[in-house]
Amino acid sequence: MNIFEMPQKLVYGKDALKNLGDCAKQHGDKVLIVSDQVMEKLGYLDTITKNLEQAGLQTVSYLGANTEPSDIYVDEALTLFNDNQCEVIVTVGGGSCIDTAKAVAVVATNGGYIGDYMKDKIATKAPVPLIAIPTTAGTGSEVTDVTVINDTTHHIKMMIKQSAFLPKVALVDPALTLTSPQNVTAATGLDALCHSMESYFSRKAQPMTQTFSLAAIEKIMSYLEQAYQDGSNFEARNAMSLAATQAGLAFSNASVTLIHGMSRPIGSLFHVPHGISNAMLLPAVLDYTRDAAIEPLSEIQHHLHPEETGTSAELADRFIQSVKELCQKLAIPNLKDWGIEEKAFEDALDKMAEDALASGSPSNNPKIPTHDEIVELYRICYTYKY
Amino acid sequence: MNIFEMPQKLVYGKDALKNLGDCAKQHGDKVLIVSDQVMEKLGYLDTITKNLEQAGLQTVSYLGANTEPSDIYVDEALTLFNDNQCEVIVTVGGGSCIDTAKAVAVVATNGGYIGDYMKDKIATKAPVPLIAIPTTAGTGSEVTDVTVINDTTHHIKMMIKQSAFLPKVALVDPALTLTSPQNVTAATGLDALCHSMESYFSRKAQPMTQTFSLAAIEKIMSYLEQAYQDGSNFEARNAMSLAATQAGLAFSNASVTLIHGMSRPIGSLFHVPHGISNAMLLPAVLDYTRDAAIEPLSEIQHHLHPEETGTSAELADRFIQSVKELCQKLAIPNLKDWGIEEKAFEDALDKMAEDALASGSPSNNPKIPTHDEIVELYRICYTYKY
Ligand SMILES: NC(=O)c1ccc[n+]([C@@H]2O[C@H](COP(=O)([O-])OP(=O)(O)OC[C@H]3O[C@@H](n4cnc5c(N)ncnc54)[C@H](O)[C@@H]3O)[C@@H](O)[C@H]2O)c1
Ligand SMILES: NC(=O)c1ccc[n+]([C@@H]2O[C@H](COP(=O)([O-])OP(=O)(O)OC[C@H]3O[C@@H](n4cnc5c(N)ncnc54)[C@H](O)[C@@H]3O)[C@@H](O)[C@H]2O)c1
Ligand SMILES: [Zn+2]
Ligand SMILES: [Zn+2]
Repeated sequence: MNIFEMPQKLVYGKDALKNLGDCAKQHGDKVLIVSDQVMEKLGYLDTITKNLEQAGLQTVSYLGANTEPSDIYVDEALTLFNDNQCEVIVTVGGGSCIDTAKAVAVVATNGGYIGDYMKDKIATKAPVPLIAIPTTAGTGSEVTDVTVINDTTHHIKMMIKQSAFLPKVALVDPALTLTSPQNVTAATGLDALCHSMESYFSRKAQPMTQTFSLAAIEKIMSYLEQAYQDGSNFEARNAMSLAATQAGLAFSNASVTLIHGMSRPIGSLFHVPHGISNAMLLPAVLDYTRDAAIEPLSEIQHHLHPEETGTSAELADRFIQSVKELCQKLAIPNLKDWGIEEKAFEDALDKMAEDALASGSPSNNPKIPTHDEIVELYRICYTYKY
Repeated sequence: MNIFEMPQKLVYGKDALKNLGDCAKQHGDKVLIVSDQVMEKLGYLDTITKNLEQAGLQTVSYLGANTEPSDIYVDEALTLFNDNQCEVIVTVGGGSCIDTAKAVAVVATNGGYIGDYMKDKIATKAPVPLIAIPTTAGTGSEVTDVTVINDTTHHIKMMIKQSAFLPKVALVDPALTLTSPQNVTAATGLDALCHSMESYFSRKAQPMTQTFSLAAIEKIMSYLEQAYQDGSNFEARNAMSLAATQAGLAFSNASVTLIHGMSRPIGSLFHVPHGISNAMLLPAVLDYTRDAAIEPLSEIQHHLHPEETGTSAELADRFIQSVKELCQKLAIPNLKDWGIEEKAFEDALDKMAEDALASGSPSNNPKIPTHDEIVELYRICYTYKY
């Protein structure tokens, strides 16, 4: 038996934003906008506010989601939501804004502390209707049932997953990604590549997710480099936007695996952006996983290049090679070159491996690593050379 | 801009039915089951009732949906729903049962006569939560926002389409299709093929729907003949079940085209089952459409057989040929051999062409026909020989 969940409505492609007013007014009259100051400077906040006001809605904005999201942001935004008796939440920004808004939408109706939902608290009441508008082509958070929130008391990145965190509507307009700087385009694009690849060979992969994984991989391998080289290339941005959303649909229902499992501890301890820490692990973890994933990897290569011949192992290796080349073109550094000190890294290895295993993601990998293998993999990634 | 809508939750594959109790109890305690007497005889009603009762739910059953659905069935089931103060609807059966239940779910909360929703009445209130469980691999109704209901006063097949008609949960268990008789397997399987093909080359096709169209076509071309020849072949039934659902996701968001447009009048006037009337039109309408659809048809063929070479026209023709061969193997008769009298058919042609055009579906076809061309196409289909 397979379960596949997604927001009931996905609006995407050129001019998708024009649909915002219509979407929002189906759910209420008073809107909390959750965003950050970068979005305000880019003028996106203004566009969205006008869109909503023209549809007859009132708005109030929370612009505090300026770094990776924390329980403090959730509290602040929630207070604003309650004080203004809002009925709908619209969020515009990268995964950080969207994850903050998802948490607010659930806590507003189900109460408690956001961290409770990682433990045994189940959201049984419908969340506040949330319209999620991504400005990065990366996390897929607009269509996932996941939110990642920092617990600022215990310094833990909480990975919280429940159906209630699914937005009501995902509104994916590629024009909003045109301003994404090169480093953000690289990091978020490779995040989407990890989502699509990991979900494809995950032990929890299912037919519906594999269809989306392949649809995403195909577009990312064709367009990410173009979007990175020329951020104003609309065709490339458009393809990457949809790819990131499809990759989100895939991993939200099939899970991620070892790369994401090992990536989160790097993010928490060394403040490497999520997409970059994934990409730093990508080549070595693919090499490690290869023997147990020759079938799925060769299927991906066959999907991308049906005319190619060769054994499954040859096809799998060609795919791995092309992923490595893409990371190289996008100038992904290793952990050492990024500036992480060797001593600090060595000291952290044990805890990082423990946290990676505890997250559960490594157990979805085709080859399930031991604690020591994870430590060894971290070391390989530290000085990885293409 | 593209809009893609689907039920928030899709449970599918082997043993999907085991999830029913869990799904239902999230939405209430008292369930109306909408089904027919065939389902009762097959024991499916019993299985479902037990499933629900074991999860602590109370049930009441409406078993009147024994032919293609009508406003009378909707009224009868609604009365039962209200008299028993039900909170959830579960439907098990072919498209006829599911379409009846969808109508009840919307009218129960939004009031009025079901026919009003074809005109200007918009359902603004959330419908009763509906869990749709198909027993045919065909209509895809479990994931579409469409319901087709006969207006028994005016003898019209009403095609009603609004977001509110989307079920809350689609629960697609292939085991329920194992008992489908050969003629039903053929008709419903070819209905799904039409949904997937028509949505692929529809003028309203979009990236998300094309992905599903191809995923469906691929499985139908590989497995429909097997499911037809040996109804107990679980692998074939499983593939066909998911294919029909994916085809439903595709056409619900990209529309059907000329085949469905011309098929409904045959169904209304001569009581040919929906899938069969589609199949009777399939070869001739594909031939008619070919010149304007060489690109999409060749893309389908390329997806199915990436190793094949040839011009786009050659690939398109090979696909059309394989569809014709499939219809032949499934023993699809022409309209004459089905038993429709020539005089009655000739007399109806004008009205049929008018009704076909009025439905709007022909205007989504790559080549848009005139009234006279539709009449001529009906004539060709009347005595079509493979
Ligand atoms: N919920 C999920 O399913 C999910 C999945 C993966 C990652 N995540 C989380 O998402 C977060 C990362 O999100 P992200 O990668 O989108 O980065 P981000 O949201 O942290 O944004 C990175 C920076 O880029 C800026 N930015 C975003 N879009 C821009 C644009 N169009 N133009 C100019 N600047 C822009 C932001 O303001 C921010 O300063 C992490 O917290 C990660 O854990 C969540
Ligand atoms: N809502 C939509 O999106 C949509 C799409 C296409 C068609 N339709 C409508 O659906 C209806 C046709 O539905 P259908 O093709 O599923 O046929 P159906 O529901 O009319 O069923 C045909 C017959 O097969 C029997 N049957 C169904 N499943 C069986 C099984 N597993 N074992 C044994 N017998 C079984 C039924 O009891 C019935 O007697 C038409 O009214 C058509 O207009 C709706
Ligand atoms: Zn990620
Ligand atoms: Zn149909």
